[in-house]
Amino acid sequence: MPAPLRTFQDSRKEMPSKDTPLNEWDLIKALSREFGPAPPGVILGIGDDCAALAGNGPDCLLWTIDTLVEGVHFDLAYTSLAQLGWKSLTVNLSDIAAMGGEPRQALLSLGWPPARDRRGALSFAAGLAQAAREYGVAVIGGDIVASPGGLIVTVTLTGRVPAGQMLRRAGAHIGDLIFVTGPLGEAAAGLEILRQGLDLPPELQEALTEAQLRPRPHLRAGRLLAQEGLATALIDTSDGIATDLYHICQASGVGARLPAAAVPVSPRVKAAAPHLGRDPLDLALFGGEDYLLLFTCPPEVAGRLPESFSRAGLAAPCPLGRIVAGDRVVLLTPAGDVDISGQGFDHFRLDPGPDVQ
Amino acid sequence: MPAPLRTFQDSRKEMPSKDTPLNEWDLIKALSREFGPAPPGVILGIGDDCAALAGNGPDCLLWTIDTLVEGVHFDLAYTSLAQLGWKSLTVNLSDIAAMGGEPRQALLSLGWPPARDRRGALSFAAGLAQAAREYGVAVIGGDIVASPGGLIVTVTLTGRVPAGQMLRRAGAHIGDLIFVTGPLGEAAAGLEILRQGLDLPPELQEALTEAQLRPRPHLRAGRLLAQEGLATALIDTSDGIATDLYHICQASGVGARLPAAAVPVSPRVKAAAPHLGRDPLDLALFGGEDYLLLFTCPPEVAGRLPESFSRAGLAAPCPLGRIVAGDRVVLLTPAGDVDISGQGFDHFRLDPGPDVQ
Repeated sequence: MPAPLRTFQDSRKEMPSKDTPLNEWDLIKALSREFGPAPPGVILGIGDDCAALAGNGPDCLLWTIDTLVEGVHFDLAYTSLAQLGWKSLTVNLSDIAAMGGEPRQALLSLGWPPARDRRGALSFAAGLAQAAREYGVAVIGGDIVASPGGLIVTVTLTGRVPAGQMLRRAGAHIGDLIFVTGPLGEAAAGLEILRQGLDLPPELQEALTEAQLRPRPHLRAGRLLAQEGLATALIDTSDGIATDLYHICQASGVGARLPAAAVPVSPRVKAAAPHLGRDPLDLALFGGEDYLLLFTCPPEVAGRLPESFSRAGLAAPCPLGRIVAGDRVVLLTPAGDVDISGQGFDHFRLDPGPDVQ
Repeated sequence: MPAPLRTFQDSRKEMPSKDTPLNEWDLIKALSREFGPAPPGVILGIGDDCAALAGNGPDCLLWTIDTLVEGVHFDLAYTSLAQLGWKSLTVNLSDIAAMGGEPRQALLSLGWPPARDRRGALSFAAGLAQAAREYGVAVIGGDIVASPGGLIVTVTLTGRVPAGQMLRRAGAHIGDLIFVTGPLGEAAAGLEILRQGLDLPPELQEALTEAQLRPRPHLRAGRLLAQEGLATALIDTSDGIATDLYHICQASGVGARLPAAAVPVSPRVKAAAPHLGRDPLDLALFGGEDYLLLFTCPPEVAGRLPESFSRAGLAAPCPLGRIVAGDRVVLLTPAGDVDISGQGFDHFRLDPGPDVQ
């Protein structure tokens, strides 16, 4: 699920009290009750990165959908339509990666403002098609509607994973180690650069804005973890790891502890942070949209990770902390422990609604 | 594809000249070129009611997506959230019906305005869940995002059809007869009643507004046509039959002739038309949203239709005209022949854009 255009510092101000009913997760739970239990043949229903269906063969069919809304998830002032096309597919691809799967086919539903030159839709499609070619996806249909507000893009994507290999959010055990497949915070730093219109040294500017505008889903890492049975739980880092890790904890019935000093903040984010006026750790923990994979791994398996990843031509995953008993995600800082469970954003809370506060 | 909130009389004023590039169909063709040919395993790509994928067994997997946008496809001034929930699933179900298929699972992507009470999402879900139960669909996942404009609903749906039975838009032959599975114009008349805030005699008021607000996709008729091999081409009536029939003609490389006197205008529409200030034939041909099935049938098979439908507990389909050589849909009127090919709406043309006229 892609993160809206906001960062933790904004969202923290609007965090609802525990009594506020129907935040995003409450609502998802309430909807899930309304829709009832999934019938046989549905291996995985509401509540993971993808739904999963039994196939006739040895593979599960994975299935996901994501909507990007102009002014919420993207701003065309600093995102080209081709970049948006790329991103609208790759955020879905990241959901397939987060199950250990391989992507297959996509449908596109495009809400286009009638007053806007519709030739722009071809630039959008070119970017989407580029991502489709790069990741072996076929775009095989869809829907075009008028949108009286801004641009709306919905992509739905299928994938496959051998049934015995599928990785879920549930499955983390007490004592497991926590890893992430890359350094954190680059996409959020890139967003700040773009929003503030900053001009940083080229090597920072380009890498960080690319991280925001052209995410590269970690499909090969996801397949590796699934094939070699290296992970117990898996999710992608779309909402910020404080939230993404909390999802793993909730689904698995465990807690997590992260030493602040061990959080793999990207060196580029550290270098850029003074220019951005932002705390690099904040960007890393709460910024979101890195579209890396966050996973848990038994200690006796963790030693195999560097070699397995290296054999596959991938950088070794970064250690982040440990799964513990409880139900909270706790950051260990020199000033004491801080509960960061689920901090990041609620997808509804762009503006405080009438029933908030 | 659901029709926007407009009727032919509005849209006709805005019909672009033939030189206007990139109307909806041009754009779909251009996008299709951008995305390239579908790979093996994809039986049907862009350009029909559903995409179709080869399964491991004897069935094809059907797959469709539809987006409904507030102010374009629905108006909450006269549509309850529960009715919207119902309709957001049933318009997709109609696409499965239009392939002769049976629906299976759905994902929901809901764009909710943050300032609006999110408990309304539960009413919406209740309506969607009611349709899901009635038609045997499992809602197994989705996505919730903030929408800075109005409500946005996207549903994606899968279905199954035995590979040898699947019915497409292509397949109509010269000499085939054209049928529709019910009388035309009720949903468009219902929309006029709601938009104009009219109060008609109860038997008209209720039936016509229900036709608009709670469409009932003709899944059983679609399965019957497919199972018994009764149809050569099939589509659902979402955009108005002048457009829907034109889609069959374009896909099949044929033309069609409809005697105006034979068009099965709903008697309720005829009765309501004076109150609406609308021509009943206009509503029937161009109004859209009836979500019936429009199909072609060889003359030697047409005689079996009434008995087959009756055995299945369904009303006999209504004859509409005949497939001929050419590439136009022509209405035969006492005043002469009128080319109505593709008239109805272009989904982009809610407002004339800057590159129109």
